[in-house]
Amino acid sequence: MGRFFCDSWQIFYLCSMTKIRAAVIGYGNIGRFVLEALEAAPDFEVAGVVRRDARASGPAELARYIITDNIATLADVDVAVVCAPSRRVEVTAAAILERGICTVDSFDIHPEIADMRGRLDAIARRHSAVAVVSAGWDPGSDSVVRALMEACAPTGTTHTDFGPGMSMGHTVAARAVEGVREALSMTIPVGGGVHRREVYIELADGADFEEVAAAIKADPYFVRDEVSVTHVPDVAALVDMTHGVHIVREAGTPAANCATQNAGRTAGQKFEFSMRILNPALTAQFLVSSARAAVRLCARGSFGARTTIELAPIDYLPGNSDEIVRRLV
Amino acid sequence: MGRFFCDSWQIFYLCSMTKIRAAVIGYGNIGRFVLEALEAAPDFEVAGVVRRDARASGPAELARYIITDNIATLADVDVAVVCAPSRRVEVTAAAILERGICTVDSFDIHPEIADMRGRLDAIARRHSAVAVVSAGWDPGSDSVVRALMEACAPTGTTHTDFGPGMSMGHTVAARAVEGVREALSMTIPVGGGVHRREVYIELADGADFEEVAAAIKADPYFVRDEVSVTHVPDVAALVDMTHGVHIVREAGTPAANCATQNAGRTAGQKFEFSMRILNPALTAQFLVSSARAAVRLCARGSFGARTTIELAPIDYLPGNSDEIVRRLV
Repeated sequence: MGRFFCDSWQIFYLCSMTKIRAAVIGYGNIGRFVLEALEAAPDFEVAGVVRRDARASGPAELARYIITDNIATLADVDVAVVCAPSRRVEVTAAAILERGICTVDSFDIHPEIADMRGRLDAIARRHSAVAVVSAGWDPGSDSVVRALMEACAPTGTTHTDFGPGMSMGHTVAARAVEGVREALSMTIPVGGGVHRREVYIELADGADFEEVAAAIKADPYFVRDEVSVTHVPDVAALVDMTHGVHIVREAGTPAANCATQNAGRTAGQKFEFSMRILNPALTAQFLVSSARAAVRLCARGSFGARTTIELAPIDYLPGNSDEIVRRLV
Repeated sequence: MGRFFCDSWQIFYLCSMTKIRAAVIGYGNIGRFVLEALEAAPDFEVAGVVRRDARASGPAELARYIITDNIATLADVDVAVVCAPSRRVEVTAAAILERGICTVDSFDIHPEIADMRGRLDAIARRHSAVAVVSAGWDPGSDSVVRALMEACAPTGTTHTDFGPGMSMGHTVAARAVEGVREALSMTIPVGGGVHRREVYIELADGADFEEVAAAIKADPYFVRDEVSVTHVPDVAALVDMTHGVHIVREAGTPAANCATQNAGRTAGQKFEFSMRILNPALTAQFLVSSARAAVRLCARGSFGARTTIELAPIDYLPGNSDEIVRRLV
């Protein structure tokens, strides 16, 4: 939003129209969709795109933007949308937060989220910035659904079934295994929150299939699930990026445990959420919505790192809060 | 939570176990379920129940509680759960906020929510309290779903289909019409967010059916919908309090409007939420979850009135935030 002072209602109006300046960090699968979501958002402008090799000739849609390998060369960046693979998110976000710039990321290694949030929280507070971590769709928007369902019915179980669809995190993880030239990891729902991973790989020259398959199965991304690895001649022919989720909570209000007249009637509250989506497009859109929330929290002086369940949903949305309440509540 | 000071880790631990003291305001259909939800919650205790006629012999489950017609007689109330009909919510909540006590309500007249929130906001700020308004399930938890879906896909339309089920707000409104002895309003989904209201009434002695039916159809609760009114001998025989909702958003990320290579693939993101619930039990549970959020915001000095989309979902849930992030994100 740059730096500005407002000294009258009219100038305030102009100031409030000033757009949020966002940098895109990394221009892979997610970065491309983030750029599109930023272009379409009424309240954002693109400060630039940060790429490792900024001199390389990029795709045509980047011609109108500043491309750099150093975010410090971009002016007045309010928020950086980190589109790096999960394993590089923390170091990337930390360096940006140290410049006092807010960050959002879609870090997706579930068991490590709380600890990473703790470390980025300290850095963000020290530099008066906000980091929204793990703000894709799972973790991300799905996390909000799970929290909401538990607020609706505290007693019970929630299951999240993914797919069928390509898991970007698992695909990147499989691709990073030595001996893999190209990979695709499909998530197949078994039901009740259990999944099978179908991994399709092309082998690098000289790589041994059995060794590579074992290395994939031992990776933290895969080690908890049933995994099949298949050697194929052409991974690209199998790729489709639609994905889906089905979250079910069968639960009661606590009254289900009480010996009252309502006990029988209150058990069996049932909640379901499902979606069918283009995977990187939703990740990118939720990152951009979360970038908006990060900048708003920062403007309120509410610094630190947060997950999506620690943000008020209204802060994801553009426009005036009174209008949003009238339309959505 | 009462007033306390902590001077060591151990005492802090004891203090942090101190429960939120909640008063139940009104003991009708919702109030009963609120009491059960409070009893089952690990972090609440019941400060008392406020009823218009506190001397009347109440149901057995109230024997262990203080029953009063004046909240001022209850000690150390942190939050009041207002279980009054919508038309009496504002005056009830305002009087409680003026005592510096937080409130939650399930006010459900959608077009009036934003204005009521504005008025209660001023009162709550003046008295260092928090009011969570319209915190049942619609408005309430459904509002959060709608906001989240829009954050996931900003371009598109959302439809909310209710029922089939008994609408408590509409039933109370129909019952309040002169000439009605007893009423039941059923919500029948036509689809695409359109509903028919089936109103079943017993007439008061001497009342004219046509006049009463016309008065019901002219009520603000009913005036926007197709309404049928049927005279029946016994409304009670028709009552069932299960209800449901189906919220659908068919939408794109903004990229769907751009002439890029991804345009075709990004349109048609689809999100669905559905539930089948015991109506007053969910309203009551979400009120209690929102009461927890109100007390937390108040403890942070974040005073004023908010709707459910202005609360972070984590604040609805009991327990330690780090543990919640590990479990749900």
